[in-house]
Amino acid sequence: MPSKYWSGLVDQLDPYVPGEQPKQLDLIKLNTNENPYPPSPKVLEALSKDAIDNLRLYPDPANAQLKQAIAKHYDISEQQVIVGNGSDEVLAFAFQAFFKQDKPLLFPDITYGFYTVYCGLFDIDYVELPLADDFSINLDDYLQPNGGIIFPNPNAPTGIGMELSVIEELLKSNTETVVIVDEAYVDFGSESATALIDRYPNVLVIQTLSKSRSLAGARVGFAVGSAELIEGMERVKNSFNPYSLDRVAELAATVAIEDREYFNDCCNKIIATREWTTAQLEVLGFEVIPSKTNFVMAKPPQMSAEAMFKALREENIIVRYFSKARIDEYLRVSIGSDEEMQQFIAAVKRILSAS
Amino acid sequence: MPSKYWSGLVDQLDPYVPGEQPKQLDLIKLNTNENPYPPSPKVLEALSKDAIDNLRLYPDPANAQLKQAIAKHYDISEQQVIVGNGSDEVLAFAFQAFFKQDKPLLFPDITYGFYTVYCGLFDIDYVELPLADDFSINLDDYLQPNGGIIFPNPNAPTGIGMELSVIEELLKSNTETVVIVDEAYVDFGSESATALIDRYPNVLVIQTLSKSRSLAGARVGFAVGSAELIEGMERVKNSFNPYSLDRVAELAATVAIEDREYFNDCCNKIIATREWTTAQLEVLGFEVIPSKTNFVMAKPPQMSAEAMFKALREENIIVRYFSKARIDEYLRVSIGSDEEMQQFIAAVKRILSAS
Repeated sequence: MPSKYWSGLVDQLDPYVPGEQPKQLDLIKLNTNENPYPPSPKVLEALSKDAIDNLRLYPDPANAQLKQAIAKHYDISEQQVIVGNGSDEVLAFAFQAFFKQDKPLLFPDITYGFYTVYCGLFDIDYVELPLADDFSINLDDYLQPNGGIIFPNPNAPTGIGMELSVIEELLKSNTETVVIVDEAYVDFGSESATALIDRYPNVLVIQTLSKSRSLAGARVGFAVGSAELIEGMERVKNSFNPYSLDRVAELAATVAIEDREYFNDCCNKIIATREWTTAQLEVLGFEVIPSKTNFVMAKPPQMSAEAMFKALREENIIVRYFSKARIDEYLRVSIGSDEEMQQFIAAVKRILSAS
Repeated sequence: MPSKYWSGLVDQLDPYVPGEQPKQLDLIKLNTNENPYPPSPKVLEALSKDAIDNLRLYPDPANAQLKQAIAKHYDISEQQVIVGNGSDEVLAFAFQAFFKQDKPLLFPDITYGFYTVYCGLFDIDYVELPLADDFSINLDDYLQPNGGIIFPNPNAPTGIGMELSVIEELLKSNTETVVIVDEAYVDFGSESATALIDRYPNVLVIQTLSKSRSLAGARVGFAVGSAELIEGMERVKNSFNPYSLDRVAELAATVAIEDREYFNDCCNKIIATREWTTAQLEVLGFEVIPSKTNFVMAKPPQMSAEAMFKALREENIIVRYFSKARIDEYLRVSIGSDEEMQQFIAAVKRILSAS
C-alpha cells in the first residue's frame, strides 16, 4: 500500500525480481548463472591482515588500481574506463547519463529484465523490439529514430551471440545516440565490442566480474567507451555514490583481472561443460538454443517447461523458469561443474522416464 | 565540455568533491574522519577461505544476516532496517524515495555537502536554513511548510550535537513529511534518534559503519525507521541495485556490529583523545567548537585557517579546510591515535612559534 510519505514515483515503480537465492545447502543451484569455480586463488592471498586493517580507510574514489588493470587487459587508456558496484550500478549510471532523451530508448522484447526497471526509475521512454522467430536480434530493426539503443551480446536469457561486424554496421548508421553493448556473458565465446570504442565515440561496452571472474559476491562491473561517455557517467556516479566500490572488492577485482591464466582456464572449462550439456540435452529430445554464455535455454520434450522446472526442484535442482510469452516453453539452466551437470542430466532422464 | 550524447541533466550536475585521498605514505591523515583503529579483529577471522571462495555466489539480496544484527543491536524488527553501499547510497535512496515533493526540502546551510548534490541529481527543491551564530541548528526554524527535513546529528562539519528531546519536539509538530536524522557521528557521545522510530512513523535515522566501526573501506550504511518508510526505500533500491552490498562487506559489517565490546572501546578511546586534543588546542589559543564527533572544528590564533592548513601540510599533516563563508576561519581535524594527535599538537606549536 502506498504511503503518504513516499515521493510520487515510488508506488509506480516495478522493482526487479532477482533469481531465487535459496538457503537450502544440498541444492544444485543452476538458476542465477554463477560460476561453479571459486575466484582466482590470488584473491585470497591478496586479502592480508593489512588489507583488512586498512578497511578503516576510505577506498580510492578514482579506483586507479582497478582501472589500470582493466585498461591494460583491453589495451585502452584509463580515461576510457569507469568501474562500479556490479554491472547493475554501471547500467543504472549509463541509463541516467545517456538515455533521458526526447526519443525512446530501443531494446529487445526478450532481454535482461532490469532495462524496463531502470526506465521506470529514471522516467525514460522506451520501445521493445521483438526478437526474430529464432530468438536472434535483428539490428536492422534498430535503424529508426531513437534516444539510444541497448542490447546484451550475447543476449540473455536466450544465450545467442552476434558477430562484431553486425554491431559495427549498426554503429556506422547510428551515430547520434549512445549504443550500449551489455557484455555480461561475452567471455564464454563471443567477441567483445571493446575493439570498437576507439572508432565509435557513441558505443559503450558494459561488463561484469560476476560471471567469468567468479566474483558475483563482490559486486564489480565496469564500462569502457570514449572519454566523453565515461566523463558523463563519472558525473552521475560522483553525484550519487563516489565510493561505491569497497576496498576488498577493488582488490579482488584487480587480482582477478590480472590472473589471465586462471580466467582462461575457467572459461574454457565452462564452455566445454556447456557443449557437453547441450549434446546430452539434444540426445534427450530437448530443443537447445545455441549458447555463447554460461547457461543454456532448452525446451523439454514430453512435458511443459514449468512441469520440468517443478520436477527438477523435487530432485533438489534449481533452474530458472520465466513465465513470459515465447520463452515460457524453455528453461534457463546455468552451467555448473561437470559433476553438477552430470547430476542434472541424470535427474532429467529420471523425470522423462517417469512421465 | 558537455557532450551531445549526455542526457540534459548531466552537464548541470555539480558532483560531490570528496576529501583528498593522498598516496603519500608518511602522511598523518586527519582530513576525512577515518577511525585510527582497525576494524574488530573478528572481521579478519570471519574472512575464511570458504568466505572468499563463496564470492562466486551472489549475496543475499535481502541482507538478512546484517539486518538481524542491526535489529538486535537497537532492539527493533528487521522490517525497520534497510542496508546499503555506504550511508551515501542509503541517503541517495532516501532522497529519491521521500523528498521529491511540491514543497522544498529543508536543511542547514552549513552541513554535509552531499545534500545539495542529491537535490541536483533528483531535481528536488530545497531551502538552506542558516545556522545560529554559535553554529547550532535551531529546529524552530524548520516549523514551516516543507517537503521534508534533513539534518545530521551531530552536525558536520561543526561537530555540534543536539538533545534528543529537541528532535522529538520537531517530530511532534512536523508529522506530514519525512524527517531524516543523519547520524554518521552519533556513536561518539550523542543520543540516537533510533529510540523514536516506534513512536514517529515519519522519522528515518541513517547511520554508517565508516566511522565508529572502522569500516570506511567496506562501504556499509543503514537506515532505520517505520516499516512503511523502509518499504519505500526498498522499492527504490530494488529498482536500482538490489545487490549493492557485497558478501565481504555484509560479513564484515555483521561481525563489527556484533562485537560491541571492541566498538565501545574504540569509541571511548577516540572520545578521550578528542577531549585531550580540544584542551591542548584551547591552551594554544584556538577557538574549538564543542564536538560530539570524531573530529574538531578549530579556529587558529595568529594566522588564518588556510595558512595553518598549508603550514600543516608542509609538516606532512593533512587536515580539512573548507573555503566557505563562516567556516573558512576553521580547520576540521579528524581525531587520530594518541600518537598522531601528539604529533599534530607538536606541529601546531612549531608553526605558531615560527609565525
